[in-house]
Parts: sequence; C-alpha cells; structure tokens
Amino acid sequence: MRLSQFHLHTTKETPSDAELTSHRLMLRAGMIRKLASGLYTWSPLGLRVLRKVERIVREEMDRAGAVEFQIPTIQPKELWEQTGRWQKFGPQLLKIKDRKEQTFCYSPTAEEAACDFARSELSSYKQLPVNFYQIQTKFRDEIRPRFGVMRAREFLMKDAYSFHLHDEDLVREYENMKVAYSRIFTRLGLDFRMVQADSGAIGGDASQEFHVIADSGEDALVFSTGSDYAANMEAAIAADPAARAAASEALRKVETPTQKTCEDVAALLGIDLQRTVKSVALIAGEGEAQQFVLALVRGDHEVNEIKLGKVAGLDEQRFASEAEIAEYLGSVPGFLGPVAPAKPIRVVADREVAAMSDFVVGANEAGFHLAGVNWGRDLAEPEVADIRNVRAGDRALDGGELKIARGIEVGHVFQLGRTYAKALDATVLDENGKAAVMTMGCYGIGISRVVAAAIEQNHDDAGIIWPDAMAPWQVVVCVINPKGDAGVADAAAALLQELRDAGLDAALDDRGLRPGAMFADMELIGIPHRVVVSERGLAAGTFEYRSRRAAEAESLDKATLLQRLQG
Amino acid sequence: MRLSQFHLHTTKETPSDAELTSHRLMLRAGMIRKLASGLYTWSPLGLRVLRKVERIVREEMDRAGAVEFQIPTIQPKELWEQTGRWQKFGPQLLKIKDRKEQTFCYSPTAEEAACDFARSELSSYKQLPVNFYQIQTKFRDEIRPRFGVMRAREFLMKDAYSFHLHDEDLVREYENMKVAYSRIFTRLGLDFRMVQADSGAIGGDASQEFHVIADSGEDALVFSTGSDYAANMEAAIAADPAARAAASEALRKVETPTQKTCEDVAALLGIDLQRTVKSVALIAGEGEAQQFVLALVRGDHEVNEIKLGKVAGLDEQRFASEAEIAEYLGSVPGFLGPVAPAKPIRVVADREVAAMSDFVVGANEAGFHLAGVNWGRDLAEPEVADIRNVRAGDRALDGGELKIARGIEVGHVFQLGRTYAKALDATVLDENGKAAVMTMGCYGIGISRVVAAAIEQNHDDAGIIWPDAMAPWQVVVCVINPKGDAGVADAAAALLQELRDAGLDAALDDRGLRPGAMFADMELIGIPHRVVVSERGLAAGTFEYRSRRAAEAESLDKATLLQRLQG
Repeated sequence: MRLSQFHLHTTKETPSDAELTSHRLMLRAGMIRKLASGLYTWSPLGLRVLRKVERIVREEMDRAGAVEFQIPTIQPKELWEQTGRWQKFGPQLLKIKDRKEQTFCYSPTAEEAACDFARSELSSYKQLPVNFYQIQTKFRDEIRPRFGVMRAREFLMKDAYSFHLHDEDLVREYENMKVAYSRIFTRLGLDFRMVQADSGAIGGDASQEFHVIADSGEDALVFSTGSDYAANMEAAIAADPAARAAASEALRKVETPTQKTCEDVAALLGIDLQRTVKSVALIAGEGEAQQFVLALVRGDHEVNEIKLGKVAGLDEQRFASEAEIAEYLGSVPGFLGPVAPAKPIRVVADREVAAMSDFVVGANEAGFHLAGVNWGRDLAEPEVADIRNVRAGDRALDGGELKIARGIEVGHVFQLGRTYAKALDATVLDENGKAAVMTMGCYGIGISRVVAAAIEQNHDDAGIIWPDAMAPWQVVVCVINPKGDAGVADAAAALLQELRDAGLDAALDDRGLRPGAMFADMELIGIPHRVVVSERGLAAGTFEYRSRRAAEAESLDKATLLQRLQG
Repeated sequence: MRLSQFHLHTTKETPSDAELTSHRLMLRAGMIRKLASGLYTWSPLGLRVLRKVERIVREEMDRAGAVEFQIPTIQPKELWEQTGRWQKFGPQLLKIKDRKEQTFCYSPTAEEAACDFARSELSSYKQLPVNFYQIQTKFRDEIRPRFGVMRAREFLMKDAYSFHLHDEDLVREYENMKVAYSRIFTRLGLDFRMVQADSGAIGGDASQEFHVIADSGEDALVFSTGSDYAANMEAAIAADPAARAAASEALRKVETPTQKTCEDVAALLGIDLQRTVKSVALIAGEGEAQQFVLALVRGDHEVNEIKLGKVAGLDEQRFASEAEIAEYLGSVPGFLGPVAPAKPIRVVADREVAAMSDFVVGANEAGFHLAGVNWGRDLAEPEVADIRNVRAGDRALDGGELKIARGIEVGHVFQLGRTYAKALDATVLDENGKAAVMTMGCYGIGISRVVAAAIEQNHDDAGIIWPDAMAPWQVVVCVINPKGDAGVADAAAALLQELRDAGLDAALDDRGLRPGAMFADMELIGIPHRVVVSERGLAAGTFEYRSRRAAEAESLDKATLLQRLQG
C-alpha cells in the first residue's frame, strides 16, 4: 500500500465535543467521521483497524468450532413479543413501521432471531451442540450517545448463540467460549480481565464479562490479591464481616439540627463514619403486594441496586415519596431510621450493618438521630442481605484484599438456559425420541468498541499506540523527499516488498510530506514500527528504525531491521 | 472442514411459495431461511457462498485502487432532503423515527452520505481522484418482495463512489470500474454481459449494467449480430426505418363495431398488424402546462415508458381518463386516433409510425376506424421520436440484427456528474485555488443477488452447480462408512489435508450418511468436485472422482486426481 494512493486525513484540531481520549484521537487520526448523533462513518484508515479486529474474532470463533451465519438487522415485532422483550427493552429498541404498517425493530441483539433459526433448523439432539455466530451491524437507540464509537447507536458486534440438550453441554461450550475470548483479546495485544458479572436483563444463570483495562473505563472491576477472583461491581462479593460485638452503650437521642447526612452527623458527634447507618426508604411491589422497605447500609457504603433487586420481593422498587415517608415512618428525609416507625415496615440490613453494635441512625424526627442503637435490644433483628458495593481494601472471600481497577466492557458470555427456547418453543427430539426444550448460551464481543477501548489503553500525547495485530499497518516505510533522488524511492519500494515478503503488513509513506509532518502523522495514527529511508541512511547502508513505544530511533542495517520487525 | 462439525440442513420438500428456481434451490439446500417477508437469514452454508463473492469483489476493488470505508445504515432525513431524494425515492425508502422523534432512513444506497463524507474529507484537487467503496447491508421496502434473495428487502450490496475534479477524470475511473467489474464476474465464473442502460432515477450522464445471462432473467437484453453492441430494453435503439412510401390509398372510414384492439381490427380487415397504429392517450405536465398527448406506435409494437419520458415535456405523464378522452378527442377508448380531434392535441409518433403510409387508426367515433391514412394529407406531419421497445429481428444501428436474451442485473456503473455534489455543496480547491464542485461516479454490485443469479444460470434437476470460485467448498471428500474400517477414515483425512495443501477449499463429508443420500446432498448444494473414499477404492489404489457437470464418475489414482482438481 502506497499512502499517496490511500485516503489519509489527519487533523491537528482537537474536536470540541470529544470528551474521551479515544474519541478525540479517532477523530484527529481521521478514523471516523460523524454522520449524525451516535452514527459514524468509518474512514478507510478506521475500517482497516476494525477489519483486523473482525478477522481475529472470526478466526478464533471458527477455531473454537462455531459456525458463522447472518441474521437480518430488521426483525419482526411478533418474535420479540414472544419473549416479552419488545416491552422490556424499552426505548433503546429502534422501532420501525414498514410501508404496510407492519412493525419491526433494528436488532440490538439477536437471541430471538437466533432461537427462531435454531427451532427451524434443528430437530434432533444429533445436530447438537451447535454454536452459530454472526458479525453484524447492531443498533441501540441510546438516550445519550457519546464517546464516539465507544457508545454509538449503530455499532459492529459479534454475537454467538449456542444450543444444547443438556446443561453440562452448555457449561462445556461456555468454558470453550471463555478460552476463545481469552485467545482473541490476547491476540489483539490487549491487557484484559475476565470478571464475574450479573447476567442482567438478558437473563440466565451465569455470565462473565471481558474488560479492557483502562483508567478511563466506565466500569469498576474488583480483584482479589488472594486468588484470581475478579468480578464487576454488580457481582463482586466481600467476605462476611466479623461477628457483632456486644452492646456497650445505652440508646440515646441526640440533637442533629441541620445534620442530614451520615458524614455531617459523624462530624458533629465526633465519631467514625463507619459507626453510622444510612437508611434508604423504598416502595417495593405494586397494589396489594406493595410494601415500605428501609434498606440499611453503613454510612461509608453505597447501596448496589442490582444486589438489592435480587432480594426476594425487591426486584421492582422505587424511592419512597416524602408523603410515604411521613405515613410509614412519621419522619422527614435526612432523619430516617429503623427504630419505632409509625407503621410496620420491612427492614433489610446489609451484612455489615447487621454486624454493627452501638450505631447511629435517624430518629424519625426532624433534627434528631439515635445513638447507641443495638439490634435485638432497641429494634428487632433485621433481614440480612449483601446489598452494598464492595470497596477497595475490603476483605475478599479468599482471604485476600479487594482491589479496584477501571475497565471497558468489550465482551460478555452468558449461560442463558432455557428461557428463550421455552418462550419460542425451540425443541429437539432427545435420545429417547421425546421433544426437549434446548438450553442456550450467548456470547458477544463489541467489535467497534474494542477499537476505542484499545486506544484508551494504548496512547500517549502524540497519539494512538496500536498493538501490532490491530494497527492499520504494522510498519510504515517513510521516504524522505520521494521525488528527489530516485535511489531513495527505489530503495524504499524494494524495502516495502521485502517487508511484505516477510509477512508483515507494511505501507509506504510516499506522500512527499516534510519529515516532521510525516512522523507526526505516523505517531498520531499509531503505527507500531516506523522505518525511514533517506539518502544519508542509504549512503551509510542503514535505515532509521523507531518503535512507537521507544523514545529514540536507531540506525539498523537491513538484516537487523528485518530481524527486529519479525521478532 | 468436517461436515459433521458444520451445520448442514438440506430438505427434499419443494417450498410452496418459491416461484423461482434459485429461491427453491436455496431453500432446499438450506442456504437461507425466511425470517419475515423479504428478510432472510443466511445459514452457515449460504454465508460461505456470500462471503466468497464478497471477497472477490473486495479484492478486485482494491486492485482497481478503490479504498474501502463504511457508512452507517441509518442516515438522517436532512441529508436526503438536500438532494430531493427523500421524496423522490418514495415508499421504497424505509423511514424511521428515533426516540427523540428525529427522522432517519435505512440506506437503500448512499450517494448522499458518501458525498457528505467526501465534502468533509476532501479539500484539495490533490486528494483526487478517490474512489470510496463499502460492502454493506441495504434496505429497500419493496412493495412485493419475492424470489428469495433475488428481490429481498434487506440485502448485501457493494457500493462505490468516486470523486473527481474534471469530467475526463470521471470517464477514466468509469472505464477503470468497467474493467474491474468484468474481472469480478469473470473470476466468479459467470456468463455475463455489460449493456448500455438508462441512468434512471439516480440520474447522471452515462451508465451501464452488468447482467448475468439466464433464461429466467427479468430483464430483456438486446444484442446486435453486427458488433458488440448491447443494451437493456430501456436504452436499446434500432436502426431508422426505411423511408416512407408514397400514399396509395384513399382515406376511408371502416366499420369496426367490436374491434377495439389493433389485433382485432387487422383480423377484421384482413391486413397485416404492421399496418395498424396504436394510439395511447396521455396527460403530460400540470396546471397551465398540462397538455393532451397522443403517443403512436405500430400495432405490433409496445410503448417504452422510459424513452417516452425523455421526450421534451413528457417526463411526467399519466394515462388520460375517459372524460379527458371525450373532451379532447370526442372519442371513447378502443377507437382513438390522431385524425380530426375535438380539440388541438399534441401527437408524438414513433419513428416507425412516422415512416408509415396507408395505415389504420381509430376514427374517434365508437365502432369505426380510419384506413388509408397518410401523413401530410389526412393529418399534419407528426412530432417524431423513438418511443418503442425494440424487438428481436429489428435492424441494428450497426447493420446487424437485434437479438434478445434474458438477464439478471447484478451490477451497475453510473457517471453521476455534479448533481449530488452541487446539491450538497461538495467542493474542493482546484489548481487555481478556486472552489470547484466535484464530479461523481457511482458503482454498485448486488452481492446477495449475485448468489441467486449464479444459481439461475447454473443448475440442473439435481440442484445447484456452483462455479468453483463461488462454491461453499470446491471439493468434498465423501467417506463411505466412516465409522467402519479405520483405514478409510484415515485415508480420507489424509486426502483432505493434501487437497488443502494444494490450495483447494476442501471439506470432508464424515456425517456417516448412506452414499445415495450423501451424494444427493452434494449435488443439491452444488459442490463442483466430489471425491469418494471407499474400502474398495483404497484396495485398488484409486479414488472415485466426479465433476458436478459430468455424467459419470471416474476412478483416478491420487496423482491424477490432484492434477485434475488443480487444472
């Protein structure tokens, strides 16, 4: 590839609306261009990178025994209604009416359509297991598209759907996919972690996420120093707290005229924040089943909504209104507590709160808190659950310490189980000739997101630093003054051919730019290896080589250069 | 690839709603499965073929110097309004409202978005010429989707857009693309023709279509025996007719009580159909500019609407109503004619009609026609234009004879000119530093349609007959009783490896089917080369080879087999 024949278009301007480094660098490198909110055209340069990711994903899915297929992006409403997801997906689902007023959606994921394909294609257990995958455009109508392709509305995703007769077959394929994913992200040259995840709206039994580690990542990942335990914040679990100490203080009412937060109360009383308890007032359920719930976490902790939602009866809940707080607690916000409510309420205490003694809560009276509160003495023993976010420094289940890093989710594997297959009546005949509902796994990789995540992880002030496998070209041969002495252009062309013959994806920058501008471009677009061919170098029999990660260039003869690049 | 690990699913049932051979065979071979009207999932088998076409198209586009990019499938209304195509495209354009009530469409083609990309990326003539292409899903909301992927609503298309400063640059790239397209269809192994086309709704100056020749093709293609002239029916031109003979009959009114068609009138009068003239009553223009037009073609000819639309003032027209016919001609349908209308009308005669003498037309009176009609004597000399379809046997411009064959349009190249760039203000600075509107070409290939077209051209009673380049696998090694004697399975696996090492795309049918069922499958899915490994053959040191197009199998030793397959 000669860059004079390739459309390259970098810019020095820093786009004003790009908040994230990867978004800024992709725009400056000319990899993408915005067509509309959350919709990006991939330029030739950007698409080269996207296709490299796509190819590695495809190769590893094939190697793992999955077979590629392709489902339409436009899918009928009826199918989505059979699983209840037409409603459940909400406004993220882009709904479309065709000329005949039939309703469709633009596929944001394809469990239904894959299951529909499987129920038509599969009739016997002998055809199982099978894992169908596609690499296809998806659409999610994000309320606030931003960060470029990191959270675009239209994006490229690899989604796979496996079908099995027995649960153990699903587990086997799930493990197989985890291995394939690890190979993919390793080959891409990314620092990544597999973490336990909550399976969320897609549902199912087990799920793990693959994250690219990056300081800018929007997800907090939890690791243990004691083992390879890793989970995302929604799924992370700390060890049980130490046993509750005996009560040593008497219950007393303290004046806290303007202190509405645990921080303020602790400061006023001169006690540790860890001795206070935060009360969150919720209404769970509807109609007859509606109940007032007080969820309690330690003053320095945060409620984890996903964990809370898993407590029996709390899968659907909302914050209580001031009127409801007045009715049930006889209190006002800022002074809530579980002691002596106006009406009977349900109290759910985090494990840490249940292990506390002599603690402080709101007194259910404006301007007052209660101190020296103790379970079993001042109020009934609570219902106990893990409902908080873990924090760095918490003790891990394995005895180690929990650490937190930031990550960008790029992959997700789920054991879906039989939910979808049951809703869509996807059965096969089993070994005994009886119809059996299949069990299903699904496995996604955000192909376009991987590109942005790689940049978040690998960049410096000068621009992108691609891992070799993702780079638009591994090596670019820069020609100084290509229209000058013919020997230089010829030597560069010959070197390009040798690099290619050696199996390297190489290009020639023959655009005739001044060295400074040319080098700045190559750094901005993240070329891992740069070789300069100049008259002076040729005279000395050397080429100037610089790794994108190295501070200095080196003069190398051709043999050493080839050796270095192939290393 | 071992077919036991691949999802293959053929069926003997003939789908009831499949009218076209390719649709029927694709369903029977299990290449596609219908998700909804005009929406098809590509099975692993089907996708292998689609990807082979895609790869050849990509390689040849790259070779021709085009650079790949990718535009979102969802595009904002505003862009389409700037060129007026939001209206013009009509209900084929799938319109979509997002959650914020902004309006978009699913791209049926991408001139606007490509031009928008170009106007942002290109600022100087030095960046030209450039040809951007993409291989991307498209959507056209066909009123009657049918014929499977031949006319699906969602389909895969390669679309390219080139940008130039000067007209001659566009012509050069247009010729370059014609060469690339010829290489593509040649490499795909298809019998195809490039024909002159009308540039139609997309507009522009010149255009040619690429057709796969097939008896079932919906387009009539016109060829000349005298040169390589080829055109589609909309663009085909016959030679001028012979000069008009002198009038030899007197004008007379003849009774034709129930004869409303030229055929019936000719039969009644005992004359040749070629001596009658068909009158088509039209209303052209609107408001002040509205006019009544009588278009005349010979009794045995058909009006070509595209040609008619090119006559000045007739670009927008409709059939006249009975009331309008009564008002302007004082006549009723079946008895129309250009002689003595009730009001002044415009008469447009086809070239052949203008060259007639002593002809028959309607008398503008129910139950009567006029015979012996002559131009300049019985009515004024008409306005003359080529407004008819050519017919097989017509004399060609080059002196040869016109022949008609059927074709399936799979590619189209256009010289668009400056229409889009002007509407979207896509300019670059020219050699003199002045802003100049770019001129544009566009070049499409219906990738998914090529698959169906190839089947229409290549099939027999047993199924599909793929050209080698498009086949899911070039060669399949069929193992007789793979679970029996281990020697057979091992020999087959070894042969598979040798075939692969020889660069062939080979698979192993180790599914354990009986030979008859296995061979029927391989014929149905169109495998070009079949090799059978059996105990008996191994004992004799031979393999049974059969070409899909051959009537008989042959016993070959391994060296001969490899030679044959690589030939």
